[in-house]
Amino acid sequence: MTAGIGALDLEEAGAVLAAESARFASFGWMRGTSGNLSVVLSRDPLRLAVTASGRDKGELTAADVVLVDGRGAAVQGGRPSAEAELHARVAALTGAGAVVHVHTVAAVAMGCRAPGGIVFRDLEMLKGVGQPAHDVDVVLPVIANSQDMTELGDRLEAARNPRMPAVVVAGHGLYVWGADPRQARHHTEVVEWLLELELAGT
Amino acid sequence: MTAGIGALDLEEAGAVLAAESARFASFGWMRGTSGNLSVVLSRDPLRLAVTASGRDKGELTAADVVLVDGRGAAVQGGRPSAEAELHARVAALTGAGAVVHVHTVAAVAMGCRAPGGIVFRDLEMLKGVGQPAHDVDVVLPVIANSQDMTELGDRLEAARNPRMPAVVVAGHGLYVWGADPRQARHHTEVVEWLLELELAGT
Amino acid sequence: MTAGIGALDLEEAGAVLAAESARFASFGWMRGTSGNLSVVLSRDPLRLAVTASGRDKGELTAADVVLVDGRGAAVQGGRPSAEAELHARVAALTGAGAVVHVHTVAAVAMGCRAPGGIVFRDLEMLKGVGQPAHDVDVVLPVIANSQDMTELGDRLEAARNPRMPAVVVAGHGLYVWGADPRQARHHTEVVEWLLELELAGT
Amino acid sequence: MTAGIGALDLEEAGAVLAAESARFASFGWMRGTSGNLSVVLSRDPLRLAVTASGRDKGELTAADVVLVDGRGAAVQGGRPSAEAELHARVAALTGAGAVVHVHTVAAVAMGCRAPGGIVFRDLEMLKGVGQPAHDVDVVLPVIANSQDMTELGDRLEAARNPRMPAVVVAGHGLYVWGADPRQARHHTEVVEWLLELELAGT
Repeated sequence: MTAGIGALDLEEAGAVLAAESARFASFGWMRGTSGNLSVVLSRDPLRLAVTASGRDKGELTAADVVLVDGRGAAVQGGRPSAEAELHARVAALTGAGAVVHVHTVAAVAMGCRAPGGIVFRDLEMLKGVGQPAHDVDVVLPVIANSQDMTELGDRLEAARNPRMPAVVVAGHGLYVWGADPRQARHHTEVVEWLLELELAGT
Repeated sequence: MTAGIGALDLEEAGAVLAAESARFASFGWMRGTSGNLSVVLSRDPLRLAVTASGRDKGELTAADVVLVDGRGAAVQGGRPSAEAELHARVAALTGAGAVVHVHTVAAVAMGCRAPGGIVFRDLEMLKGVGQPAHDVDVVLPVIANSQDMTELGDRLEAARNPRMPAVVVAGHGLYVWGADPRQARHHTEVVEWLLELELAGT
Repeated sequence: MTAGIGALDLEEAGAVLAAESARFASFGWMRGTSGNLSVVLSRDPLRLAVTASGRDKGELTAADVVLVDGRGAAVQGGRPSAEAELHARVAALTGAGAVVHVHTVAAVAMGCRAPGGIVFRDLEMLKGVGQPAHDVDVVLPVIANSQDMTELGDRLEAARNPRMPAVVVAGHGLYVWGADPRQARHHTEVVEWLLELELAGT
Repeated sequence: MTAGIGALDLEEAGAVLAAESARFASFGWMRGTSGNLSVVLSRDPLRLAVTASGRDKGELTAADVVLVDGRGAAVQGGRPSAEAELHARVAALTGAGAVVHVHTVAAVAMGCRAPGGIVFRDLEMLKGVGQPAHDVDVVLPVIANSQDMTELGDRLEAARNPRMPAVVVAGHGLYVWGADPRQARHHTEVVEWLLELELAGT
């Protein structure tokens, strides 16, 4: 069980994030040392536990975690990824309790094919991200990549679909969020499934 | 070993369904919290054990199971999935002792390409669902999706191929059945293999 | 380590075949209860241990094995697969000590695309089946499927490439052989890799 | 943890290489007995531990390793692969502390499609091999295969991109290197991810 916001200390959060990372790594979604995961520990002030940078995501321990503030700056622990800033911004913007960032082939391939946004329709799996399964176009936004996290965050904020807990970053990967690490995991699995379906060609 | 109809109590059934679910989840066929499995516990009156709704299908325990009646309403345990009604209807209609519902990319992709039914022919693997391996077109029916389980059940009843223990629900996934959970598993694996073959292009 | 011909008793052979089967099943090459494996226990008279029919190939035990003669008839143990006759014929014809029969999507897809035989050329991986890696066309024969094992064996005998320890059975799967179960495994992995490469499109 | 150059004795190196091999084998990148891995043990004179030839790469033990000199000739242990010469040359040429050679379908398929070199651009994942993620074409060289390791090494030396720690050998597989076995692993995962993306079609 993953606990709700506020119920985790940093080491517990690290253990949860290590387990979630190992799961995503086993799917091939965190090759090399790519991607990072976070969970919100407090809201006021905003504090997130974020996976440490530069590690193999299949081999994290409970200690491989950094406490960051609302701008992604380290409060405790080692050096956070630059992307910690974007995790914090997603948490602030959406109210999410957990953020997943993974690099999947399907996300990058589909982001390239549909740079204006990927449209899904009439798919039961859309219910897994809180969307209607019938008669409505559901857009998964695609934003251009940047090394400037403020710029990337501005693009995410401008492009995001308030009803869709995910954004594709073109040439980069996926950001997905949820109320807690388990819901963020399930949203990630659903979005990736949808992208794999589109890639397979319907 | 999975026991025959009537030989399982609810907790034993929950343990069997948890193991089968974990297996299908490991294949990526139950992403998010999608899909559900059932096993018939009695025929008169019809009673099925169905996996609990909203859980990660790779993490079920023997307790994550609901006892439902012939209309899919809960008799014991928590809230069943709405789809429990369809499980019960498949069991009543076909005499199956176990029903598998999974969300596979191949099923949805092929259901989209062949909305009138997917035709297989001259494949040894067809013997794995009790069909001839030579000289006969074997149709896997495809039915339109619905959120109304009675409507979906009517479509399944109207479209089903009495010799084929499976139906594709377009935009949704697969229903597959068998005499017991192990045979339902084997039928599911065979149908998914056939769909993956078609998707690969022969 | 798998021992050479003659060094295994039936239960030891069953344990080896169960482990090899579980490995192939984990790759998705023995879906449902498909495929079977064998190892030669004696040459004169010819005796093979063959995996028992109708079982889940990921769940075999050392006891799930049948001793058959040179025509594939049971000498000891339960009911062999009808395909045991073909295993025995391959062993007699080629001198192989172990035979692998699996149902892979790539084999069936490529057998359909190239019913006259699949041609490989200029691939290092060909050395893994004892073939030259440069400047020579290497043919993997494809034969038509049949439920008559004598007919299927005649086709295999007529079509086989003496330098290639494998044949594709169209609409069915792969037969691959080697000196012992480990070499048969390696030949199977190499042939499947070659088929997956062709299917990916070079 | 994998230690830096010089800190490993041969058995420790064998244990590290066995673990790395098992990992790559689990991805299907070392089918049959294909591929080999090495780690530099000393620079002056150059000594590398190389995985033993002809073994299943998922079943290596710490003893399945050979100590070779700068020409790939055995100093201690059994028979090295002929390819040990190329490992030694890569280590001498690039200063790498570890070399990975795997046979992946994506590498061979893409090497066939783009024999003049595979061009990547505007991909965040390029940072995982030390390349810019924006606005620059990054070339992964492709060289023709050969059974003559001196010839193959000359081609690698002539074609290599000093900023890219990898080369595709057409019709054969991948050579990838890094400062130590873990970095070589991460570089391998990143290069393979990039190749799978190209193969999926962007």
